[in-house]
Amino acid sequence: MNPFDTICALSTPPGVGAIGVIRMSGPEAIAVCNRFFSGKDLSIAKGYTLHFGSIQDGDVTLDEVLVSLFKAPQSYTGEDSVEVSCHGSPYILQQVLQLFTKNGARLAKPGEFTQRAFLNKKMDLSQAEAVADLIAAESSAAHETAMHQMRGGFSSEIDDLRQKLIHFASMIELELDFSEEHVEFASRDDLLKLLEEVKRYIQRLIGSFDYGNAVKNGVPVVIVGKPNAGKSTLLNRLLNEDRALVTDIAGTTRDSIEDEIVMNGILYRFVDTAGLRETTDTVEALGVARSLKKLKEAAIIIYLYDLSTESAQQADEAVEALKNSIPEGSKLFQVANHVDKLASINRSELKDTANKLHISAKENHGIETLKASLENVVLSGNVNREGSVVTNTRHLQALHSCDEALNRSIEGLGKQTPGDFLAMDIRQALYFLAEITGEITTDDLLDNIFSKFCIGK
Amino acid sequence: MNPFDTICALSTPPGVGAIGVIRMSGPEAIAVCNRFFSGKDLSIAKGYTLHFGSIQDGDVTLDEVLVSLFKAPQSYTGEDSVEVSCHGSPYILQQVLQLFTKNGARLAKPGEFTQRAFLNKKMDLSQAEAVADLIAAESSAAHETAMHQMRGGFSSEIDDLRQKLIHFASMIELELDFSEEHVEFASRDDLLKLLEEVKRYIQRLIGSFDYGNAVKNGVPVVIVGKPNAGKSTLLNRLLNEDRALVTDIAGTTRDSIEDEIVMNGILYRFVDTAGLRETTDTVEALGVARSLKKLKEAAIIIYLYDLSTESAQQADEAVEALKNSIPEGSKLFQVANHVDKLASINRSELKDTANKLHISAKENHGIETLKASLENVVLSGNVNREGSVVTNTRHLQALHSCDEALNRSIEGLGKQTPGDFLAMDIRQALYFLAEITGEITTDDLLDNIFSKFCIGK
Repeated sequence: MNPFDTICALSTPPGVGAIGVIRMSGPEAIAVCNRFFSGKDLSIAKGYTLHFGSIQDGDVTLDEVLVSLFKAPQSYTGEDSVEVSCHGSPYILQQVLQLFTKNGARLAKPGEFTQRAFLNKKMDLSQAEAVADLIAAESSAAHETAMHQMRGGFSSEIDDLRQKLIHFASMIELELDFSEEHVEFASRDDLLKLLEEVKRYIQRLIGSFDYGNAVKNGVPVVIVGKPNAGKSTLLNRLLNEDRALVTDIAGTTRDSIEDEIVMNGILYRFVDTAGLRETTDTVEALGVARSLKKLKEAAIIIYLYDLSTESAQQADEAVEALKNSIPEGSKLFQVANHVDKLASINRSELKDTANKLHISAKENHGIETLKASLENVVLSGNVNREGSVVTNTRHLQALHSCDEALNRSIEGLGKQTPGDFLAMDIRQALYFLAEITGEITTDDLLDNIFSKFCIGK
Repeated sequence: MNPFDTICALSTPPGVGAIGVIRMSGPEAIAVCNRFFSGKDLSIAKGYTLHFGSIQDGDVTLDEVLVSLFKAPQSYTGEDSVEVSCHGSPYILQQVLQLFTKNGARLAKPGEFTQRAFLNKKMDLSQAEAVADLIAAESSAAHETAMHQMRGGFSSEIDDLRQKLIHFASMIELELDFSEEHVEFASRDDLLKLLEEVKRYIQRLIGSFDYGNAVKNGVPVVIVGKPNAGKSTLLNRLLNEDRALVTDIAGTTRDSIEDEIVMNGILYRFVDTAGLRETTDTVEALGVARSLKKLKEAAIIIYLYDLSTESAQQADEAVEALKNSIPEGSKLFQVANHVDKLASINRSELKDTANKLHISAKENHGIETLKASLENVVLSGNVNREGSVVTNTRHLQALHSCDEALNRSIEGLGKQTPGDFLAMDIRQALYFLAEITGEITTDDLLDNIFSKFCIGK
């Protein structure tokens, strides 16, 4: 693929609407549009201007449009670009796209406009990746981290670290040129201090990934428990809507039901599961198997029981048994439901602890405490929500690799390792940082990243 | 509703995409946007310019956007307007809309931008109506008629007629002021000539409605026949795809299947129906009842029979029987299928006539002739496809009423009706023409028209 040909695509969602926008970018973008545009001559118009006119295919007026004109390098892609705002008719949009693609442009691949923005150095790779995250963001926390990353907050922090490391690496490399003379341009004490500073920062970023991942993909919460413990009622209560089917018949919920709820800016994906009962019903048995599978993917597990039919001790035993089935690092809550069935004297004796809560899903009692407990899990790990948050597994891998190279450097310093080995380890650390911002990259990696974008972005 | 408050809406289709556009129009549109826009001061910027910046809700950057700026009256609505091109994230678009609606704008009703364009005299009513038709157009013919109407082709023809009639009406009214003196400012001969000219034109427009309606809504074609006549195979052949289930078991098609195909720019809605067989199967019986209902809505009916099991005479009788069930003005074709089952000597003896065709759906024989016959039906009635075509029942009603008023005028002229009655009839004709372009209108009518638009248009 020639990265400098002219590409076009529908940039608005498919379907009927008031407006549909076709975007075209590349050296011929303005000329191709101009050839069919009845309005002002776009080739002599200034960038950042709007032009009303019609798109003419010979005698046929395809549409009356507004053309937004961008001249390189002042555009999203850094190339000459037009955005043609048409009537939101799939028929018209298809006709205009066909006209352009028959006359010098080709249909863009997913993410190809943003890929060009990266290739033309309008943004670095982590910023480009954030564009897709921003579009996919469903909660304020996901939106915030993506926006921070897209606006280069993350990149500039990474860049600061790199500049400092580059300085020392150069100094050590300079020493090698004077190796006969045994000079030290780079103070080993200062270098150790810097390496430890960089390492602390990298560790903070790595530590932010649990939160970042939760923020970006939502926090999977699985509710398990015996049939009729009130799982569906609790789910409905959390969702504030009648999502799950609620009946008095044990085993009503046979399939896993997923739903999403944003609480305090964080997205939770709640999964209600079939009750964990030994069963002879085939359909229900399938449901139980699926529950166990869902457990493996959970970040938070709620073991829900009916305190009127299951004692606290029985619940403790059930939770102990569950601990073998849940993923490492997940958090388990033991939640007693149906406090409404207790006499008020007994109710007042119930004391919540960090992991053991008492609620009445039916009477909406204790639900806010449960929600707050969920949020605490997500916000734990001393996440500084102000700074950069890593949400991308590619970045996480690079940070881990960088961390290892830093460890080797620090270890080497302690062992008085020769300068050339030291310089190599620091260059390695630099390499992994450069991977994040895309200064070092491969075509395969780019294809992989941008293929997950929307068409037209 | 105050027609001069500030309205905003999402103008692109809902869903995730590269770009989503929020449109805002009204006296406060620029000020509301400017208050949250980090870029250039929009209040001093020129119209038809683009501005890059971010939308800030306090400390939170909601999005990096491009704002298209339009100053009254140079805008779609004729008012100050902005179009904010955001990342196509439903979360972001909702946040930006909320920001604007909490700060001086309100959500627009369907079609309200176009309604304002009409109220601010940027377009007349028939042009405004054509905007919705244009967006809904699915074929080149529908697109062409809507575009002609939106660009004012129809309106200017109506306006020409009105100007001529107004001249005569004024002359006759002037005569009334001098009624004592029995003068004739308006030549009765010239008036008659004009009225007849206008009437011919109105009649041509009325005559175009069958074509216009077919073009706008698609031509309903119903295929009927005995079980196993090959209806599903024919439908598949016409659609060039395997849309209907085809088996050798009579009565396989139990439900009506609709599909659309554009041939030579005209959209046909093909309906395959359950075979018209006496049946004891309840489900199939329902299908037969539905077939009869579909027949009532057909513009074209194809009676399909298998010439290897049904003689031409039997087919004639079946067609005769059908004639009671089909709507007036519809066209019926008698199509013999399975010519592939004949020896080639017999095949060569078959002669198609206007209404009787011979095909092999299986071997794709005679299908093009059938398609041409369908097109002839649509293009009949001497439709001049170059001129205006009436596609709107509201316009048709007004034209019929105008025609009646013209008839009364012409009749009156013959009977030497006094000038005041004559003037009244001509004013009536003018009234109905003015209804089409919306010079005379009511709030109810406008609400009715624009409520069928997209939100954001």
